[in-house]
Amino acid sequence: MRGVVLHAPGDVRIEDRDDPRIIEPTDAILRLSATCSCGSDLWPYRGVEEVHDAVMGHEYVGIVEEIGAEVSTVQVGDFVVGSFWASDNTCEICRAGYQAYCVHRVLMGTIGTQATKARIPLADGTLVATPGQPDPDLIPSLMAASDVLGTGWFAAVAAEVGPGRTVAVVGDGAVGLLGVLAAKQLGAERIIAFSRHADRQALAREFGATDVVEERGDAGVGKVKELTNGLGAHSVIEAVGTQEAMDQAIRSTRPGGHVGFVGVSHDVSIPGDELFMAGVHLHGGPAPVRRFLPELIRLIWDRTIDPGKVFDLTLPLEQAAEGYRAMDERRATKVLLTL
Amino acid sequence: MRGVVLHAPGDVRIEDRDDPRIIEPTDAILRLSATCSCGSDLWPYRGVEEVHDAVMGHEYVGIVEEIGAEVSTVQVGDFVVGSFWASDNTCEICRAGYQAYCVHRVLMGTIGTQATKARIPLADGTLVATPGQPDPDLIPSLMAASDVLGTGWFAAVAAEVGPGRTVAVVGDGAVGLLGVLAAKQLGAERIIAFSRHADRQALAREFGATDVVEERGDAGVGKVKELTNGLGAHSVIEAVGTQEAMDQAIRSTRPGGHVGFVGVSHDVSIPGDELFMAGVHLHGGPAPVRRFLPELIRLIWDRTIDPGKVFDLTLPLEQAAEGYRAMDERRATKVLLTL
Repeated sequence: MRGVVLHAPGDVRIEDRDDPRIIEPTDAILRLSATCSCGSDLWPYRGVEEVHDAVMGHEYVGIVEEIGAEVSTVQVGDFVVGSFWASDNTCEICRAGYQAYCVHRVLMGTIGTQATKARIPLADGTLVATPGQPDPDLIPSLMAASDVLGTGWFAAVAAEVGPGRTVAVVGDGAVGLLGVLAAKQLGAERIIAFSRHADRQALAREFGATDVVEERGDAGVGKVKELTNGLGAHSVIEAVGTQEAMDQAIRSTRPGGHVGFVGVSHDVSIPGDELFMAGVHLHGGPAPVRRFLPELIRLIWDRTIDPGKVFDLTLPLEQAAEGYRAMDERRATKVLLTL
Repeated sequence: MRGVVLHAPGDVRIEDRDDPRIIEPTDAILRLSATCSCGSDLWPYRGVEEVHDAVMGHEYVGIVEEIGAEVSTVQVGDFVVGSFWASDNTCEICRAGYQAYCVHRVLMGTIGTQATKARIPLADGTLVATPGQPDPDLIPSLMAASDVLGTGWFAAVAAEVGPGRTVAVVGDGAVGLLGVLAAKQLGAERIIAFSRHADRQALAREFGATDVVEERGDAGVGKVKELTNGLGAHSVIEAVGTQEAMDQAIRSTRPGGHVGFVGVSHDVSIPGDELFMAGVHLHGGPAPVRRFLPELIRLIWDRTIDPGKVFDLTLPLEQAAEGYRAMDERRATKVLLTL
């Protein structure tokens, strides 16, 4: 098969790799229909995380080609979507809805799904089949469900978005934009998107944002307060992972409100006294995407939502290196790799 | 009237002060039946917070002596309990259950309830009357409801304590012990108290603790993991306010679990990456005691709970200075001042 390997910072190649095979009886082998690049892939690409000769990719959709003896919930030929964490979906943590912390979890990034095929551990707990073979135009949206949509959705759920709520979204990348979409689906009354980019503002509005705030930091917080009788938003999504974004999220939330944070934290420190006086709820981390996959697939299948719009560049897998370059040079936010 | 004044660090005196009078039509004047000293009073007493000639005290129970023209929910002669925040109980934040953040809130410490009388602002929203005049032995428990019980209760609610849950409590002061009591009342299946003091261990067990862990820090976390199949507790109460306690609380909680923190934060910093990977919910701050007062009063009145046991020294108000000394010298945890 063909697969992406990061040999050294900046050195991405697509090359021949051994075909995956069933190792555990709970495994499945997929022939991938699409995969993609994630913002988190840029950390090793830029040398911030030291990685050599590493397989890449953790998002995937595709067709089941082979199943282990113990796999029963998916069949050969099924079109399936899975999360970036493989999970048994039966342990106590999974049953509580936290499949990203499954006691048997496997991080798909260690398997590398920027490839034509992939072995999926714990297939019964990890994969969800679509109702049939999808129309080609649904593939980007199903691909988004594998990570960015599931992550934005989790952020909205963690922020306790619901009817009558005012929601603010910090971060206008793919996850933030899909947090807006999730907030709309979950019935939010008002959705305030922080964004300075015209194209992302437009997509935020298309996904359901009612207000766009260009200010950041305390000026941005001030704007949210203005829009909420001085109280702050009920629910705030943090989808960046920086100190500024976390501060902005906490300060934009009213006392008793909820912050859902999914930006991967980089050098963030939360002052205890400020959090104490803020009186907000704080919840986040790696999204348990598996919890939401059945519902997300249904919404995509019914064409209720179109989260695939967050992909702003589509390339064949063979041109993965160009996809990395485009993201590194900020010419693209999220790259779909087709097969 | 008589009231406590802190003239300078270590210099507490009980002296004559002007009788309080109605200022706003929403005020009530109470003749206090009891008051108490709080651990937080030690900060200015020890000179850590600079305070001079300050009135002291924010906890109180007593009899309504006079009401303003607009007060309607309490009557002259009622025995009442109030919180350390006066709140209107009608604003949007109060209605959401966060009366400690009422848009009109008044901190009772600025009024000073270590006195024979006190003016209570926003009486309708702040005070809750008992069903009748309490038997004298109920006074300490009603006094506890004003702050430490309400705070421990909020911590348990913030930690989402409930039937079937395993709860761990960090801190064996009055609030931590009453967090144990709250967890028991809220139906927790198992309650793990962290404590190294025989007398507090005994009271924790009396209040409902099923397990006592003497280890602290990561050793304490290890014990909680041992008791919970390696997963951690569902709910953890943090009732100290130090870095060690917060770390211990977060690390003792399973992914998807809840930390309720009410220890007043002193130099605490929460690392974003650790919180991200932990996947816990974090909620806390100054307790909205008013939310819980009707229920707490009922439980005390029915003699279902006896939170007054946390007072380990009782003195007449005239001996308040000795009460401060006893707490400063750790001869007492919580001092009841009688009138």
